[in-house]
Amino acid sequence: MLAVIKNGATEQQVDNLIRWFEKQDIKVNRSKGEFCTVLGLIGDTSGIDTDLLEGLDIVESVTRISDPFKKANRKFHPEDSVVDIGGVKIGGGNFAVIAGPDSVESEEQIIATAMAVKAAGAQILKGGCFMPRTSPYDFQGLGEEGVKLLLKAKEETGLPIISEIVSTEQLPLLDKVDCLQISARNMQNYELLKLVGKSGKPVLLKRGPSATIKELLMSAEYIMAEGNGNVILCERGIRTFETYTKYTLDIAAIPLLKELSHLPVIADPSHATGKASLVRGGALAAVAAGSDGIEIEVHPEPGKALSGGIQAIDHKQFEELAASVARVRGIL
Amino acid sequence: MLAVIKNGATEQQVDNLIRWFEKQDIKVNRSKGEFCTVLGLIGDTSGIDTDLLEGLDIVESVTRISDPFKKANRKFHPEDSVVDIGGVKIGGGNFAVIAGPDSVESEEQIIATAMAVKAAGAQILKGGCFMPRTSPYDFQGLGEEGVKLLLKAKEETGLPIISEIVSTEQLPLLDKVDCLQISARNMQNYELLKLVGKSGKPVLLKRGPSATIKELLMSAEYIMAEGNGNVILCERGIRTFETYTKYTLDIAAIPLLKELSHLPVIADPSHATGKASLVRGGALAAVAAGSDGIEIEVHPEPGKALSGGIQAIDHKQFEELAASVARVRGIL
Amino acid sequence: MLAVIKNGATEQQVDNLIRWFEKQDIKVNRSKGEFCTVLGLIGDTSGIDTDLLEGLDIVESVTRISDPFKKANRKFHPEDSVVDIGGVKIGGGNFAVIAGPDSVESEEQIIATAMAVKAAGAQILKGGCFMPRTSPYDFQGLGEEGVKLLLKAKEETGLPIISEIVSTEQLPLLDKVDCLQISARNMQNYELLKLVGKSGKPVLLKRGPSATIKELLMSAEYIMAEGNGNVILCERGIRTFETYTKYTLDIAAIPLLKELSHLPVIADPSHATGKASLVRGGALAAVAAGSDGIEIEVHPEPGKALSGGIQAIDHKQFEELAASVARVRGIL
Amino acid sequence: MLAVIKNGATEQQVDNLIRWFEKQDIKVNRSKGEFCTVLGLIGDTSGIDTDLLEGLDIVESVTRISDPFKKANRKFHPEDSVVDIGGVKIGGGNFAVIAGPDSVESEEQIIATAMAVKAAGAQILKGGCFMPRTSPYDFQGLGEEGVKLLLKAKEETGLPIISEIVSTEQLPLLDKVDCLQISARNMQNYELLKLVGKSGKPVLLKRGPSATIKELLMSAEYIMAEGNGNVILCERGIRTFETYTKYTLDIAAIPLLKELSHLPVIADPSHATGKASLVRGGALAAVAAGSDGIEIEVHPEPGKALSGGIQAIDHKQFEELAASVARVRGIL
Repeated sequence: MLAVIKNGATEQQVDNLIRWFEKQDIKVNRSKGEFCTVLGLIGDTSGIDTDLLEGLDIVESVTRISDPFKKANRKFHPEDSVVDIGGVKIGGGNFAVIAGPDSVESEEQIIATAMAVKAAGAQILKGGCFMPRTSPYDFQGLGEEGVKLLLKAKEETGLPIISEIVSTEQLPLLDKVDCLQISARNMQNYELLKLVGKSGKPVLLKRGPSATIKELLMSAEYIMAEGNGNVILCERGIRTFETYTKYTLDIAAIPLLKELSHLPVIADPSHATGKASLVRGGALAAVAAGSDGIEIEVHPEPGKALSGGIQAIDHKQFEELAASVARVRGIL
Repeated sequence: MLAVIKNGATEQQVDNLIRWFEKQDIKVNRSKGEFCTVLGLIGDTSGIDTDLLEGLDIVESVTRISDPFKKANRKFHPEDSVVDIGGVKIGGGNFAVIAGPDSVESEEQIIATAMAVKAAGAQILKGGCFMPRTSPYDFQGLGEEGVKLLLKAKEETGLPIISEIVSTEQLPLLDKVDCLQISARNMQNYELLKLVGKSGKPVLLKRGPSATIKELLMSAEYIMAEGNGNVILCERGIRTFETYTKYTLDIAAIPLLKELSHLPVIADPSHATGKASLVRGGALAAVAAGSDGIEIEVHPEPGKALSGGIQAIDHKQFEELAASVARVRGIL
Repeated sequence: MLAVIKNGATEQQVDNLIRWFEKQDIKVNRSKGEFCTVLGLIGDTSGIDTDLLEGLDIVESVTRISDPFKKANRKFHPEDSVVDIGGVKIGGGNFAVIAGPDSVESEEQIIATAMAVKAAGAQILKGGCFMPRTSPYDFQGLGEEGVKLLLKAKEETGLPIISEIVSTEQLPLLDKVDCLQISARNMQNYELLKLVGKSGKPVLLKRGPSATIKELLMSAEYIMAEGNGNVILCERGIRTFETYTKYTLDIAAIPLLKELSHLPVIADPSHATGKASLVRGGALAAVAAGSDGIEIEVHPEPGKALSGGIQAIDHKQFEELAASVARVRGIL
Repeated sequence: MLAVIKNGATEQQVDNLIRWFEKQDIKVNRSKGEFCTVLGLIGDTSGIDTDLLEGLDIVESVTRISDPFKKANRKFHPEDSVVDIGGVKIGGGNFAVIAGPDSVESEEQIIATAMAVKAAGAQILKGGCFMPRTSPYDFQGLGEEGVKLLLKAKEETGLPIISEIVSTEQLPLLDKVDCLQISARNMQNYELLKLVGKSGKPVLLKRGPSATIKELLMSAEYIMAEGNGNVILCERGIRTFETYTKYTLDIAAIPLLKELSHLPVIADPSHATGKASLVRGGALAAVAAGSDGIEIEVHPEPGKALSGGIQAIDHKQFEELAASVARVRGIL
């Protein structure tokens, strides 16, 4: 970390600041120039609050050279992490296809889709039970009843299951679920992050629509700081000025996250594009860009879905997509 | 609401859809053109899920003419709402200045700032106790101890107090606080919104950095749907490509929100700009644009603040700002 | 196009508006509802200025159902267009790799790179001679001298060449160039668009960093309206809040543009990511998403490039990339 | 400027780089830390291409401490610049209201509006003759005929006039216009910037919808580098995810630009909001935030405007607005 000190600062003030750093086991390399003094901070600066430092009267600007994320940082953990979801591995060369409906609607629906996606090659089933919706008047999910249906689908197909947690009280209800999903809207719901951190369960952490790459990694850090390293990062589209698509799939985030972090990275082209006809292109792109998996919304009849119908593909379309994904994976 | 039906749809399919609308007490006006059929939906369409409708095979596109928010909508409630925070009124011509530190740090700090902002003309004191921070390694607030200090400051100055709630479990601890703040990161934490809705307490709802005007109003709707109409909307900057400022203060959101909704609207130029030198310009602009109040971060010594120091102004700067605000208010 | 008329409009006003439409050969389907009247406009509405219409006192809102772009629209031209650049075809199943340095710097540099990219499988050579730079103090390109060197490289390798035009006066100087590039900054420089339209030459039109998909297609329309259908669209990254990458490669724009338009679509992952290590991921993603080509910046020694070094890859990296691209193309 | 050198760099490589800097009259302060070496560059670094530097193999990252803009920089020119437009001063405490229609449509229209805005207190008349429009099928302005009408309005009212230049060929036609406007779409049309720079005429430079503050100042630098210091900066809204308004008026840009530069800064709330009902709020906000002027679109009958009608206000609304602006100015 570099701190640029303003020209007007007194020797005394700079000395005080240096002593403060040293008390926190940070060595300081002082370099005086014509227009400013630069302090090079050496040691573990992840505990330094950049905003606090920039707020000081004598500080002109602060630049992090090392990243503020530590446990998620590839520099300190060069090998890929592998996360195990009910026996299915993701990361470190292991690729997984996660598929299922936006929300669990009925026994018929979830069992039919579970069987169809398994037959097409998916390894993990997804389905929402507690649904965060923009409008309080929209369908809010089947709740506990939905979890039971999802477990039934797991029993029938043997597929491990992923479902979303939106509130700290729901953890006991989701106890038998193999992986907890933190949705985009809750990426910075820190109480929830700490809770899933303590649970030790695998967590699928979705990037918030206005979250920077750094913020996503800092949210992973919240989970990991509780001792839970089973975190999968998911790029699911960011909010930009473009409105033809629901969000903008930030495809370069995939190789970038893999460069910065050892955690597995997957993509969700269904929510990112918000348009069934673009899911195929987005999914194949994510695979080609090096993702460790993809999450695809599948519904027996998208036109009748209670939520997410606009971006869901049907069983037949998924079969074709899964085959194409396997082909692209094959040559990488 | 208008639904444009694809050219290929059969009469039977269109009839089925019309019957489905009619079952929900929505009258349908059918208009057949050369290239498409348009259904005009008349009645209360706030319960219609636009995505669901767009997901139907036979639907080309859907356009809302009436807004999806209902209780927050000025059309159905033309007079301004007035929210009472511990005796201080906001909205309907009542203007309030809310001031205080980002976080409560010590008794000395909060009492000193409370007295200073009161003397300068502020009507409400703010101070964070539970702090959502991007990094798990940054200062997280004093918690319950902070609430006690804030109540002491209220006792000494008589100013009503606002503090942030970040988790449903905290409600009992914040029982004596006059107004609960929902921060930007939690604007779509729906479980929290429902809870503060049920509490009946005044709520200061901050716009998320990537939330549209419509989404902000839908989040207000979550609180109001629980029977709590005491909601104040707060513009606090949106995330854009510009990085010189921390966020971009969306100044036009103020007159726009007042056009669309009857709820009071305030602005927080401190977080929006993230730069102490720009707070004055942002604050005066918000007042001139017609806001019902402003929230300003004030600290005895911003350079020593444990959080938010970069955007805080000191007691003297606040005094000057409050006087300028009063002058601009005076001529509007 | 649908125009929603305000409730307060008189019969006379609505009749006047309808007559105005009819004078422009647009049939009007009038549908009166409880809260508003909807006019369905049937015919060629591409000449209707939506803003003008929305500015009318009696109009509540206007929704386009048909797109404002006409000549670029796939609806009126269902088959893929194929553009021929000096004998190399792009579009309609023809895929091309365009490669070369950001700017032509010297004879040695451009010849070396031309030979290297040809050997690796590139079909077209690119190189900038007139460089639009953010700072007036940065290298502005070799100008006319650069064009000569580029032509020499064409002669030696037989590769057709693409170079950028930034001002109307430069057209004669670029006469022997096979394809003119309009850069992102000039996407809405309409005088330039009209000029290259009149020239009849193939045009590589890059999407502006804040241009919507619709605006990109309207800029293509400017060129095509002059009778020049040889337009290739290029996604090169949009400006978003994310700053780890220079721009955000909007990967879903590729299948979306191919859905909306018959024009060939390519991607430029070099400028989009602005980071050499991410070019490979972005390029393979674009191919998998269905692009008709890619444009890659290649330099003998990126660390010594006079411009664009940060995103350029070297000859060896390009060879590996071109081989991977061919493998992904092979299975699609 | 600080350059952080990678750990793996050899002494030889670092020495070479230092010698290269020294050849450009830049002194280098070398500081070796545990993880990296930092070079502090002292002297005039505005000529250093940051991208070029970051592209070097041995460079980890580059941070500018001094700004890349020089002539526009307040650091080197602490007093406010004052620009004179046909006798009306802007900047340095001089405030001006610029008003007129989006485009000149007829003699009646421009004369009527010129007289109305003069009577209401505007000091400068604006009107577009060459109109850059998104669609080639929309009204493109009256061209040379429009310029004549604008000059007639100047003659009748004595108001100086501003009109837009969109192409280098138009300069002779706009010879008698008092101030040339560079529109948002052309902010990075560098050939045009150089030309208006050479002309010596006052230039109203509008910020592009996706241009950063720094890029706006670099475009001003292009004009000033030709010896023309008569540049007025104009904030006119940036493109963000919010679609209720056409653009987002970046109100904090006003005090920020005045902090960074000595050039006058004005705001255009008409284009920024794209909605007549929001113009008043945006205009008063800009004045309160410290702008040196505002530009407002005014039309005799906005509902009949050939362009821009959606954001134009009528004569009576302008009269009320101008009076409010004067009141806010009065107390600052």
